[in-house]
Amino acid sequence: MPELRKDPVSDRWVIIATDRARRPSDFIRETVPAEPSGRFCPFCPGNESKTPPEVLAYRSGSQPNQPGWSLRVVPNKFPVLGIEGDLDREGEGMFDKMQGIGAHEVVIEAPEHILSMAALSERSIEQVLCAFRDRTNDLKNDRRLKYVLIFKNHGEGAGATLEHSHSQLIALPVVPKRVQEELEVAGRYYDFKERCLFCDLLRQELKAGTRIVTETDQFIVVEPYAPRFPFETWILPRRHGSHFENADGPQLSNLAWTLKSTLRKLEKVLERPPYNIVIHTAPLQEAASAYYHWHIEIIPKLTRVAGFEWGTGFYINPTPPEESAQFLRDAGLG
Amino acid sequence: MPELRKDPVSDRWVIIATDRARRPSDFIRETVPAEPSGRFCPFCPGNESKTPPEVLAYRSGSQPNQPGWSLRVVPNKFPVLGIEGDLDREGEGMFDKMQGIGAHEVVIEAPEHILSMAALSERSIEQVLCAFRDRTNDLKNDRRLKYVLIFKNHGEGAGATLEHSHSQLIALPVVPKRVQEELEVAGRYYDFKERCLFCDLLRQELKAGTRIVTETDQFIVVEPYAPRFPFETWILPRRHGSHFENADGPQLSNLAWTLKSTLRKLEKVLERPPYNIVIHTAPLQEAASAYYHWHIEIIPKLTRVAGFEWGTGFYINPTPPEESAQFLRDAGLG
Repeated sequence: MPELRKDPVSDRWVIIATDRARRPSDFIRETVPAEPSGRFCPFCPGNESKTPPEVLAYRSGSQPNQPGWSLRVVPNKFPVLGIEGDLDREGEGMFDKMQGIGAHEVVIEAPEHILSMAALSERSIEQVLCAFRDRTNDLKNDRRLKYVLIFKNHGEGAGATLEHSHSQLIALPVVPKRVQEELEVAGRYYDFKERCLFCDLLRQELKAGTRIVTETDQFIVVEPYAPRFPFETWILPRRHGSHFENADGPQLSNLAWTLKSTLRKLEKVLERPPYNIVIHTAPLQEAASAYYHWHIEIIPKLTRVAGFEWGTGFYINPTPPEESAQFLRDAGLG
Repeated sequence: MPELRKDPVSDRWVIIATDRARRPSDFIRETVPAEPSGRFCPFCPGNESKTPPEVLAYRSGSQPNQPGWSLRVVPNKFPVLGIEGDLDREGEGMFDKMQGIGAHEVVIEAPEHILSMAALSERSIEQVLCAFRDRTNDLKNDRRLKYVLIFKNHGEGAGATLEHSHSQLIALPVVPKRVQEELEVAGRYYDFKERCLFCDLLRQELKAGTRIVTETDQFIVVEPYAPRFPFETWILPRRHGSHFENADGPQLSNLAWTLKSTLRKLEKVLERPPYNIVIHTAPLQEAASAYYHWHIEIIPKLTRVAGFEWGTGFYINPTPPEESAQFLRDAGLG
């Protein structure tokens, strides 16, 4: 019998279609290549002139926009939003519009032409996380910007166009509706219980155990109760905090290990699937809050979103999270 | 300069990334085959025993589940929800769940093994629309069911697994969140203006003209002001009505012509893209309302949804609707 489950974070129902239950090998999907294509790479050292000038780099001694870096952040060459100008909010009859003000940056995660974040050293991943934090803190100074989305598209099937491992930041002049909804749900829960929704979730998942993939002293990795997609995976910090950019050194260092281990498990069990990583964090200009709790979502691209999902926002997921958690635990790799 | 536009129906911002503006030929996408694959087809006449017994058929004289029909509706062989049993809403710690009660039906649109609805006769398309209405009215008698989503996945890229032209109905025991949101936005607009949001939208689009694709005496076909996807297309009835299933004969007949013409334009301009069609209608058990207005959305599958969209619900669309409307008008075909 299929089961309807409600995700407490988004207040969205999903159908766990157990009658269609699928093992990892049953998904029709693309595999992200393990070997480089050999095409020219604008992200490799020596090709710095092929990207816009860097806004941040970790390097020892060398000159800006020259080789010798271990990580670079550059504006996207084809940005979806521009940093110059005014918002100019205005109406157009009954419609509303504004100028596309914002920032769109690319984090080139390491100088090596490595295709997967899972294959980077822990040290490199830690630098990537530090760069996310540093860039977010810098963008926060621009009061026009209300939200920074930090994300990664891995593999063509997940929207990546370049293979050299990289992530992106998009800073927006409005708090997106989905984020606003998640904040509202968490706010209502706090009003009702006087506890953080995510802290409660964490305690319950640890107690149940069936959906836990990994625990460290700082994080838990869990398959959520009502996942939209097979093998959707969340990384939740044990310590309450609303803003990712306020994470401290020991947390980021532990997160680097946790993220690498989780990606390696997913790559092993699902044979290098395309995936998206998204950091869920509180709005840029808001003070630290007791009710929101930053976390990371990883979504492997294994199924197609079709008419039903577009029409309802209701997802059909053929894999119960208790089963995907078991597969990931069995994969080993820490 | 990119532009942020807000869709008045969903209250969702989109980025019209004009700097990336793309013509129809620039999209990387699958083309839906024009010729049958030759694989065995359970939807063709003579193979009636390969589907569950029909719940509705239009036929003249012949026996149920035998050839001689012009349209059949059958339960989905692998339903995502089951019709038997009780909802059994219950908690699981802080989580909520219920049994997956509902209906999942397939409309086999014509006996001919035709791959695209655009190639069906107007008469067949009219029958399909009548079947949607008849099945919805029947499912309404089951008080457990709160919403019926009527949709079509065309082509593998849009989630179809069989090529013989067909549509689906999924009846749900809850009103999905996305539908609820659209109802709330329309309700707030009505409270504020004492007019239907969609009736206003229709008048403004007719006045502006730039996003209109086709007009008939019953419908307008329009590229919405803030489309999530390139060539997203809406069909709006001119006459106010909240429930699709209350459409009358002349409306459905005119809609058959309008839908066929629209699909032919999209297939010509975009070279047979995969697409989803979704009917947006008011909840099954609610009375006719002055503030909601049923309509159809067609979403060609031309771009990939990536990390940014999953994280924010904010969409990046490289094609302004004024341009896609021009392409579709120029395609001719009525």
